[in-house]
Amino acid sequence: MELTAIVVGLALLEYTVFTMLCGRARGRCGVVAPATSGDPTFERYFRVQQNSVEQLIIFVPAMFLFGRYVSVPIGAGLGLVFILGRALFARGYYQDAPKSASGFGLALRANLSVLLAGLIGAVVAYF
Amino acid sequence: MELTAIVVGLALLEYTVFTMLCGRARGRCGVVAPATSGDPTFERYFRVQQNSVEQLIIFVPAMFLFGRYVSVPIGAGLGLVFILGRALFARGYYQDAPKSASGFGLALRANLSVLLAGLIGAVVAYF
Amino acid sequence: MELTAIVVGLALLEYTVFTMLCGRARGRCGVVAPATSGDPTFERYFRVQQNSVEQLIIFVPAMFLFGRYVSVPIGAGLGLVFILGRALFARGYYQDAPKSASGFGLALRANLSVLLAGLIGAVVAYF
Repeated sequence: MELTAIVVGLALLEYTVFTMLCGRARGRCGVVAPATSGDPTFERYFRVQQNSVEQLIIFVPAMFLFGRYVSVPIGAGLGLVFILGRALFARGYYQDAPKSASGFGLALRANLSVLLAGLIGAVVAYF
Repeated sequence: MELTAIVVGLALLEYTVFTMLCGRARGRCGVVAPATSGDPTFERYFRVQQNSVEQLIIFVPAMFLFGRYVSVPIGAGLGLVFILGRALFARGYYQDAPKSASGFGLALRANLSVLLAGLIGAVVAYF
Repeated sequence: MELTAIVVGLALLEYTVFTMLCGRARGRCGVVAPATSGDPTFERYFRVQQNSVEQLIIFVPAMFLFGRYVSVPIGAGLGLVFILGRALFARGYYQDAPKSASGFGLALRANLSVLLAGLIGAVVAYF
């Protein structure tokens, strides 16, 4: 399971970078807390972070299910595809929202593959 | 623990449906990213997704605590009540925000029961 | 691992309090769902909850990595620092957003220490 843990940790580290870029954008764009809107540039950095939370809530448990009930190395590979997709998503979104689409789709496909296969693996292990 | 993993996987699958309905509502309501407000219908779909993240951040680890320190089958039963409550919450919210209240309360009660009993079970196991 | 589970459970319990205070603020400030803005007081309560989700998505898996690959008692100690930091963060934010900074920084440092050391521990265990 070490490999699963490492890939999950790397995905959380990537997310940490997104949160720090979002915090920096808040200062640069002059968006004063608790506001989270009002400047389109800040809103893009904020949405990258928020959308990452929305995906990680699936990814983290799904990776452990996949690692336990399907395959640790295949799970790690799919996890790396997820991390790559999220990097492309963020880089695109920071430029212009529509440019995030291809990275978003890549990461989403990897994420849902991990979830569905992990769930099927758990069902098969139960019966 | 397979049963715990299956119920957690099903809750994440239900959440995946909410995210896809939210994505579809974004297109239909003409809300252009990075905006997340401006159309009341889209805002209802968005809040269902966001509120699901806010609950799943408790539910996923609490289910594993409960399964380990209390009971796998009872945890699975409470988890299914949570999933049902979230479905009623979403269906109600999509129609009108106040209609989400009864499903919200059902899921919240199941979620907090899993968390509190799982925490107490861990404390008892420690001493 | 019981100690890790207990500290994670306590952090989720603290977060549950933040969500309930946010729900109460919604009623008191007259912010009608699905809206999440429009009243500065409610927005502060809402941001405390949202920011807690943004941090817990790292904290929960990182605590289990740290507990498994580094040290359960040290992880529990850092987890308690995180919980204390989040309490100071929330109390400050409820008064005025800038007053949340010191608690935020304390919790963030504890959280990133747990993540980085847990990830390094997993890498060392793998090789």
